[in-house]
Amino acid sequence: MELETLTPDKVEAGSENLPKNGRPRVVVIGAGFGGLSVARQLANSEVDVLVLDRNNYHGFWPLLYQVATAGLEPESIAYPVRAILRQYPNVSFRMTEVKGIDFEKKQIYANGHAMPHTIEYDYLVLAAGSANNYFGNDALAEQTNGLKDINEAVQLRNKALTAFEQAVSDPDPAHRKSLMTFVVIGAGPTGVELAGAFAELIGHVLRKDYPMLDVNEARVILVEAGDRVLATFPTGLQKKATQQLQKMGVELMLGNPVSTIENGVVKLKDGTEIAASTIVWAAGVRGAMLGDTLGVEMARGARVKVQETMQLPTRPEVYVIGDMAYLEGFKTHDGKTVAYPMVAQVAIQQGKISANNILATIRNKALSTFHYRDKGSMATIGRRSAVFDAYGIKQSGYIAWLGWLFVHLIYLIGFRNRVIVLTNWAWNYFTYDRGARVITK
Amino acid sequence: MELETLTPDKVEAGSENLPKNGRPRVVVIGAGFGGLSVARQLANSEVDVLVLDRNNYHGFWPLLYQVATAGLEPESIAYPVRAILRQYPNVSFRMTEVKGIDFEKKQIYANGHAMPHTIEYDYLVLAAGSANNYFGNDALAEQTNGLKDINEAVQLRNKALTAFEQAVSDPDPAHRKSLMTFVVIGAGPTGVELAGAFAELIGHVLRKDYPMLDVNEARVILVEAGDRVLATFPTGLQKKATQQLQKMGVELMLGNPVSTIENGVVKLKDGTEIAASTIVWAAGVRGAMLGDTLGVEMARGARVKVQETMQLPTRPEVYVIGDMAYLEGFKTHDGKTVAYPMVAQVAIQQGKISANNILATIRNKALSTFHYRDKGSMATIGRRSAVFDAYGIKQSGYIAWLGWLFVHLIYLIGFRNRVIVLTNWAWNYFTYDRGARVITK
Repeated sequence: MELETLTPDKVEAGSENLPKNGRPRVVVIGAGFGGLSVARQLANSEVDVLVLDRNNYHGFWPLLYQVATAGLEPESIAYPVRAILRQYPNVSFRMTEVKGIDFEKKQIYANGHAMPHTIEYDYLVLAAGSANNYFGNDALAEQTNGLKDINEAVQLRNKALTAFEQAVSDPDPAHRKSLMTFVVIGAGPTGVELAGAFAELIGHVLRKDYPMLDVNEARVILVEAGDRVLATFPTGLQKKATQQLQKMGVELMLGNPVSTIENGVVKLKDGTEIAASTIVWAAGVRGAMLGDTLGVEMARGARVKVQETMQLPTRPEVYVIGDMAYLEGFKTHDGKTVAYPMVAQVAIQQGKISANNILATIRNKALSTFHYRDKGSMATIGRRSAVFDAYGIKQSGYIAWLGWLFVHLIYLIGFRNRVIVLTNWAWNYFTYDRGARVITK
Repeated sequence: MELETLTPDKVEAGSENLPKNGRPRVVVIGAGFGGLSVARQLANSEVDVLVLDRNNYHGFWPLLYQVATAGLEPESIAYPVRAILRQYPNVSFRMTEVKGIDFEKKQIYANGHAMPHTIEYDYLVLAAGSANNYFGNDALAEQTNGLKDINEAVQLRNKALTAFEQAVSDPDPAHRKSLMTFVVIGAGPTGVELAGAFAELIGHVLRKDYPMLDVNEARVILVEAGDRVLATFPTGLQKKATQQLQKMGVELMLGNPVSTIENGVVKLKDGTEIAASTIVWAAGVRGAMLGDTLGVEMARGARVKVQETMQLPTRPEVYVIGDMAYLEGFKTHDGKTVAYPMVAQVAIQQGKISANNILATIRNKALSTFHYRDKGSMATIGRRSAVFDAYGIKQSGYIAWLGWLFVHLIYLIGFRNRVIVLTNWAWNYFTYDRGARVITK
């Protein structure tokens, strides 16, 4: 995860630069919700847009936990960026990893698969998303699995399924039990969704796959430092989610922060020790590591401080959006004003504002400031069970679950991906099965 | 690929053995077409069956080339073994890698994920399939990609797609051209299907994805030592396949064996040199490496010599079937008698005979010998284009292609996998797209 800063002298001779054709060039780093929003908003305008991403696909991370729990195959939540952008003649894409930025020279140093190279920009939008936050605790990073990208999701799937395979031939009852124990740390939407999906995987699928194991020994434990699940949701929905999780057999350990994790044993503040082979870290997220290399003012969660126009305070031609950006103005349910959350809708709307402000600058118009239209939030907990606080509707249970399904299918990019996901969901629903429970290497 | 021979003294203390319950135990190594055929034939009989495989899934290898060319996601051709076998009360499964077999003690030494352990058998069926055959040439193995399992298919997909991403930023015209050159070595069904699929991927998808590249520079070259494609097919279909491949733009280099591959340059016998970043080895297959460790008589292609009952000549309780087994008796189109080919139907039918012979032994009945019912063979070349020589029907073109689709959907295991594959095929067909063209790490 360490970013090497690639200064111009380290860029090899022969590095070509992209030709500029006289039109202003907007470089967008990241092809997530934010980056794609910028590109779409600038499509067919008077600028050239170049989108950079280390992957060649846009990942639909809201469904990542389903890849980790064998409900979906990775390719169904990944959509090739070129397939999205090729319809816009002024937008191009390059798969490359950004290593550093020289704000003075307006240059990006990137490590493409071919060779290091520099890319010039007139306007820059940083939309590189987020990373796991271990708060400097290396043991956390080593002893737990994250769930931030497809690699981590597949690793987690492999680990969970392999643990059950190992349990079959493990003669030591205590160790066998630890192989069937899943600890999810952090009861935000990711942690809640993942814990629920693990409980269903065990109860509906692994119970049948492993008749020789006493699957009643299996545990899914959701650990949370705070005293509630889904802290950002309305109180009523928190209670519903708590009930639904407990009904599914998820053990909740609230108000009990992790003190240490050593040799596969999670120790909580109150002294509880849990031996578990699968431990997931869903308790901390920070802005992408790229932010650390910029030499600009950072805020909580390693996010870059931005103005309400989404510009860097010191560099009006540089915009930072989405998970990477720190901007206060979000109203919580209990009336506080905090930073805008790291969710897709914020990134999408900040992307639009950034694109509009870039065009406004070029056209000598006044810039706009960011005003969030909060579409709300939702989390699925399991089969016919979700909490939904969006579009002015507060629901839990079956209707919330249908709403969750519908919204996620709509936002998923690509007709093929929608059909594949819907097929998997229908299959999982009617058969109580998880077809993607294969262990890959 | 080296198999370490794990002798009993290397098996750690504490290795448990599987309990035996007084019924004869049949251990089947490999959950491919052959191994599953044995298990199904023995289901609900008076023996206990234990199936071992290093993977937790059955891979449907006839569609592997579509994973390698981004037409299908890996999970759609993999089906969890436990999901197949859990319906049979006398059949169980263990994910483990067999390291050696002691025929005297009737024990298997295996390296499960938990720990090394021994497994006793009364009857043993070796159905571990095949591996790439590089004929002892390490350079071939290093410089080429194989296509024998899901890992290799995903590696090949990543390599081919990454090559195009690299080409975008490569300023050297010669190197850029090599990035867009695909050499497939071996014009058997795998090579032909793969070359056709690469030609379609480039012509229909990458051409649109990379408008900045001159995709006319891209080449797909099919190299074959012999003078014909699909050597085992009837002459008429060979000609049709040749025409169809050429029409799709695949360059055929027949009767021209590879002499060396160095630094990404394939040199053929006649002196032709081709610089290519993607080189696929589809010219040699051998029996699984496990065969080498047995100390038994081996035949061509590192396959184990078996009797017509599928038994080892020296060990009547050990059966060898499918790609691992060498047994002559197959009649070619030109009237020769050769060893049974490494195809699914042979493995399936040999599996049935082995299972029946094990039961016959237990029941003191006479053993049967293997008589192959040749259902024929088929290969798809591209869109609406295939050759089909099966069930007494010889066809090429559209009808052959529909036949190929139908047969493969029927043999694919699992309703979900069929729906996902059919959805992908319909999508690929109507949109000329390949939705799974994502580069994973």
